[in-house]
Amino acid sequence: MQFTVTILGAGSATPTLGRHPSAQLISYENENFLIDCGEGTQMRLLEYKIRPSRLKAIFISHLHGDHYFGLIALLSSLNLGGRTDDLHLFGPRGLDEILLLQFKYSQTPLHFAIHFTAVDTTQHTQVFDHPCFTVHTIPLQHRVPCAGYLFREKLHKRKLIKEKISDQMSYECLKKLKNAEHIYDESGAILYNFEEYTLPAPAPRSYAYCSDTRYYEQLAEYIKGVDLLYHEATFMEDLAQQAYERYHATAKDAARIARKAEVGRLLLGHFSSRYKEFSGFLQEAQSIFVATAIAEEGKTFAVQSTST
Amino acid sequence: MQFTVTILGAGSATPTLGRHPSAQLISYENENFLIDCGEGTQMRLLEYKIRPSRLKAIFISHLHGDHYFGLIALLSSLNLGGRTDDLHLFGPRGLDEILLLQFKYSQTPLHFAIHFTAVDTTQHTQVFDHPCFTVHTIPLQHRVPCAGYLFREKLHKRKLIKEKISDQMSYECLKKLKNAEHIYDESGAILYNFEEYTLPAPAPRSYAYCSDTRYYEQLAEYIKGVDLLYHEATFMEDLAQQAYERYHATAKDAARIARKAEVGRLLLGHFSSRYKEFSGFLQEAQSIFVATAIAEEGKTFAVQSTST
Repeated sequence: MQFTVTILGAGSATPTLGRHPSAQLISYENENFLIDCGEGTQMRLLEYKIRPSRLKAIFISHLHGDHYFGLIALLSSLNLGGRTDDLHLFGPRGLDEILLLQFKYSQTPLHFAIHFTAVDTTQHTQVFDHPCFTVHTIPLQHRVPCAGYLFREKLHKRKLIKEKISDQMSYECLKKLKNAEHIYDESGAILYNFEEYTLPAPAPRSYAYCSDTRYYEQLAEYIKGVDLLYHEATFMEDLAQQAYERYHATAKDAARIARKAEVGRLLLGHFSSRYKEFSGFLQEAQSIFVATAIAEEGKTFAVQSTST
Repeated sequence: MQFTVTILGAGSATPTLGRHPSAQLISYENENFLIDCGEGTQMRLLEYKIRPSRLKAIFISHLHGDHYFGLIALLSSLNLGGRTDDLHLFGPRGLDEILLLQFKYSQTPLHFAIHFTAVDTTQHTQVFDHPCFTVHTIPLQHRVPCAGYLFREKLHKRKLIKEKISDQMSYECLKKLKNAEHIYDESGAILYNFEEYTLPAPAPRSYAYCSDTRYYEQLAEYIKGVDLLYHEATFMEDLAQQAYERYHATAKDAARIARKAEVGRLLLGHFSSRYKEFSGFLQEAQSIFVATAIAEEGKTFAVQSTST
């Protein structure tokens, strides 16, 4: 099952030539999900040849413009493009009001339904239930209500060992084996031991997106053991004080959280426009947490199980 | 006096790779004015090395997204960039409500004043009075309230002929000559004939911007004799019926208006995404009005007097 994160934008509030505000595309099999949608996100999708028609849901972390100003434009284009499929939208209270007001003045009749859920940014709660994964909010500490999102794959079924399966075994029987149930004969003895006929399910994978937040320890509990963590790193260590005052994090803050939460890998992004390149971020973070990478725009990262 | 129009975007509603939604920069001497502000306009300004700090006023034609979705992002960036100078904003009723709602949810304290004027899109009225020019609305026929904008330079003073000016002539005297007044001696005879000491003022120049409109004859009256006319040409002639039904114009419609209004030059823009190149537009328009050009993105057009 494909489970990837494509970075559409990893800049912060001040626009910089060639860098774009926050947006990420989660691809799970043939479905796409968007997290945050800064100005110009629809142009990034075009540029990266990603068809927005496959979008199933959009998750907005907070109502600072660099995280959602591109949303109304994307929705308008989906509508203009003839979309009729429902779309699920998650974000802080007020997002729906902002969208509806703009649709009102443009006199746009929507041809598809938008199911909006106002998320409680103070809670770590499940907001989305997909057949293959769940999405939980992650409370973040920012200047305005702000939530990260945690994508956690559901436990897969065990895998049948084809060579051992015979025609005599019924569909019901195979289903039970995949669900880690033994099959018993009439006397109550084990007929088929599921461990003999199936292989363990691959470990469920998980991805956490922490858009804008000040360093706070409890965050590590919400994202404990995730395989891939995206964490903002607006500043480097020399501006640690400024980061804290502005409810942002440094590269080291992100690495501290990654280490404390024992995540598999860490991605850094949301870089302040003052920085021209990011090797310093990597260096600072790797001094605390080695498995760190830069969330380069246009790059796709696989969410891979790192559990042993 | 520099008076130019730089095309920041000449696309229409559906996004196309490499093409941008409507936005134009009017430069008058050292001041800048923006007409329409589609998504990504602030990135165009960066790209073309135009400092947004010099922006004095913004004119929005209507509340379809491809004409204003970039405005909130631009204003947010100006604020973040430390702007304290007042800004004048013109647009249909509702634009202020949309902006204020977004500033409310982002908890953004603005460090500069925005003076908003809700324009009456059904009237041809002066909305802006600059020392060197005026701006009038141009009623357009679109699906939502929509106004074009007419920039009309004020009459300059006459130009002194340096070689003829002597030290004996007072400041007051020179001022009168520039204002086309003779100077009389005590007996009432002409001492200095203004026509002898000054050259005629250059003819005032004018620019009309007609963003989105169906063809309608009366439009020509509002823009009679302008030096440069930008007129939308969303479609070519084969889709004339569609153009009319959707309250848009064809290249030929634009040319007909240009001819009827006896303008100096015509610029075509707002091309539908279905067209890959624009030579056909030019051909169709030039069959009716020769002095036609394509509003190429990134190109700057001088507003030059074409009066004889």
